[in-house]
Amino acid sequence: MAMKVCPGFEWSGISAGIKPHGERDLGIIRSTAPTRAAAVFTKNRVKAAPVLLDMERIVSGICQAIIVNSGNANCCTGDQGLRDARAMTKRVADELGIEENRVLAASTGVIGVTLPIEKVTAAIPAAVEALSADGFDDFSTSILTTDQFPKTISEIFQMDDGSEFSITVAAKGAGMICPDMATMLCFICTDIQASSETLAAILARSVDYSFNRITVDGDTSTNDTVVIMANGMSNASLLTDSDRRRFQQALNDVLLEIAKMIVRDGEGATKLIEVNVRGARSVEEARRAAAVVAGSPLVKTAFFGEDVNWGRILAAVGRSGVEMQPESIDIFYDTIQVVSNGRGCGTESEKAAAGVIRQREILLSIDLNTGGMGTASVFTSDLSLDYVKLNAHYRS
Amino acid sequence: MAMKVCPGFEWSGISAGIKPHGERDLGIIRSTAPTRAAAVFTKNRVKAAPVLLDMERIVSGICQAIIVNSGNANCCTGDQGLRDARAMTKRVADELGIEENRVLAASTGVIGVTLPIEKVTAAIPAAVEALSADGFDDFSTSILTTDQFPKTISEIFQMDDGSEFSITVAAKGAGMICPDMATMLCFICTDIQASSETLAAILARSVDYSFNRITVDGDTSTNDTVVIMANGMSNASLLTDSDRRRFQQALNDVLLEIAKMIVRDGEGATKLIEVNVRGARSVEEARRAAAVVAGSPLVKTAFFGEDVNWGRILAAVGRSGVEMQPESIDIFYDTIQVVSNGRGCGTESEKAAAGVIRQREILLSIDLNTGGMGTASVFTSDLSLDYVKLNAHYRS
Repeated sequence: MAMKVCPGFEWSGISAGIKPHGERDLGIIRSTAPTRAAAVFTKNRVKAAPVLLDMERIVSGICQAIIVNSGNANCCTGDQGLRDARAMTKRVADELGIEENRVLAASTGVIGVTLPIEKVTAAIPAAVEALSADGFDDFSTSILTTDQFPKTISEIFQMDDGSEFSITVAAKGAGMICPDMATMLCFICTDIQASSETLAAILARSVDYSFNRITVDGDTSTNDTVVIMANGMSNASLLTDSDRRRFQQALNDVLLEIAKMIVRDGEGATKLIEVNVRGARSVEEARRAAAVVAGSPLVKTAFFGEDVNWGRILAAVGRSGVEMQPESIDIFYDTIQVVSNGRGCGTESEKAAAGVIRQREILLSIDLNTGGMGTASVFTSDLSLDYVKLNAHYRS
Repeated sequence: MAMKVCPGFEWSGISAGIKPHGERDLGIIRSTAPTRAAAVFTKNRVKAAPVLLDMERIVSGICQAIIVNSGNANCCTGDQGLRDARAMTKRVADELGIEENRVLAASTGVIGVTLPIEKVTAAIPAAVEALSADGFDDFSTSILTTDQFPKTISEIFQMDDGSEFSITVAAKGAGMICPDMATMLCFICTDIQASSETLAAILARSVDYSFNRITVDGDTSTNDTVVIMANGMSNASLLTDSDRRRFQQALNDVLLEIAKMIVRDGEGATKLIEVNVRGARSVEEARRAAAVVAGSPLVKTAFFGEDVNWGRILAAVGRSGVEMQPESIDIFYDTIQVVSNGRGCGTESEKAAAGVIRQREILLSIDLNTGGMGTASVFTSDLSLDYVKLNAHYRS
């Protein structure tokens, strides 16, 4: 499928020999002109070398290219790791004839192994050579690790005045989403006209709306990076409140779709579950309760086993620490109520819910009925045999 | 094996037909005389009916019998559940000819299903009939659910003055310990002379020292119950500081052994891992970091796969929120150092650690080197394929 991608950007993805079997593992995004840029990085105290480098460079608000490798996280690699991250960007800058500090870097893969930097720098000329407006699929494949499929979206949106803008996104991420997300990388290309300050504010809100509902409580890996680049080539701008709202909404929608793709591709996942908590005293409490339920291994294995085990859901809410009365809670699988006032609704409703739980996508609603209006959703996957298989032997 | 058990107590365990295949599922402990008693219950906001009943009754500080059923948690069962819990204790009291409020109740099994109370009350006369000083093994078997083996200890200790006391413990619990412990029940019989107030203080400290290092952060199931009964039949008492310390130490040691048995029997567990964090700014921070590492599914699956994946350990410490510099951290598998100052020690040390990780019991030491003296250990198991298999289909 050839996606219609954002104008003014080129992509490539090739094999540099970092991964063992010749898979694509080196990708570049290049804008034909410098872009306004903003980024959100992992909150983990342990940060990979490319993250440390990008945090310095993004301060300028300008970026023209990103170099990404998969197969090695370049994390816990000390000063050598920082030198390697710089070397990657310098080689790209030299090949493209641009300033080094306008190139960002991202890495994903195993932690604690020095990057084979000679392989990377040796492959960069070919990766630059391969840059093309048609290279999006190659790029989006080159950034994957345990992912079963690339996460991509490209859409065109319209402002009230008829001006159009594009958003094209390539992302990777397939970890068990909570509490130990494997690395999430997300690269957003748009042709909107915007300042880097405005982009930063809008990106922060969109990440909170999307990825932070799967990466619960800011639990992030050492390498997580979300970058937005805006080349300003469209007529659409963010000068009015209405246009800013339109762009915010568009970015929210796109990144939530990407976030759901990451959950669907959760390592070994067979189901996407939206855990919605309502009737909490506050949004914060609703989110905390939803996060504890969504992160519970017992709840997640029950979904894998297609067992309507609402007792585990109640027990998880009970230990979340949010204010509620157990005897007031209602629980629904999609529209099927299985718990009313803290008690089971009986065999018939469990039979009906057993039909719902066989679906690939399930809405689990929990009404705390505290009288409060707090509501929040968190997205999660089931916990399957394949999750354990994959993670027990990931390095070997 | 016939254990030498604490004098003055009788036990029984029979089948009441709650479990589907005629396994033992109903047990009674009886003291020949009323005992001083204390208890610790789940902190979960959702509490099973027998827990609510026991919380009222333990206030008296006196107990003479405990009735336990497995196969049904009598939780989220509303007023009917409370009536059933009372009915169990009343029938036992009637059969024994003692006051109803001197009988405690405990249940473990599926949540949300009404207890088959007729089966329970019908079986109680036979369970009372079976009470015997030799019934300890039957009792300790009757309280099990997914456990692969009973958790029991019985030991005799000596005070400085030569007086002796016994501690006999039967426990169950085999859940994934963190973050979703399945129910833990623990019944402690001793012949020490003690007030219920002193017992309560000592029990609280021992539970913190033992079970709270596997049930991290107070995450407990809906039914967790630890009860101590002291019949005062020995000459040993708790009148001096030295004697109290001796008893505290004895109870700490016994309950830590029981706690380790529970981790070893963690659902599907193949390994017991002590996660020790030192060099933290405080004990609280050491414990928090140890808890995050011990609870990380990625760390636990790597132990199952016998993969010396220290990057996941560093990443877990990084997201624990405790104060530290990544580039100061050292990590050891037993005595083998694999990380020095935040970087890998190389292939040789990883090979040596690969030998350690094949053991059944492993000490994982993490030195944060903050200059602080905070140190703490948390016990965990690996996360195996069998864990998922067991929990996906527990009810079916």
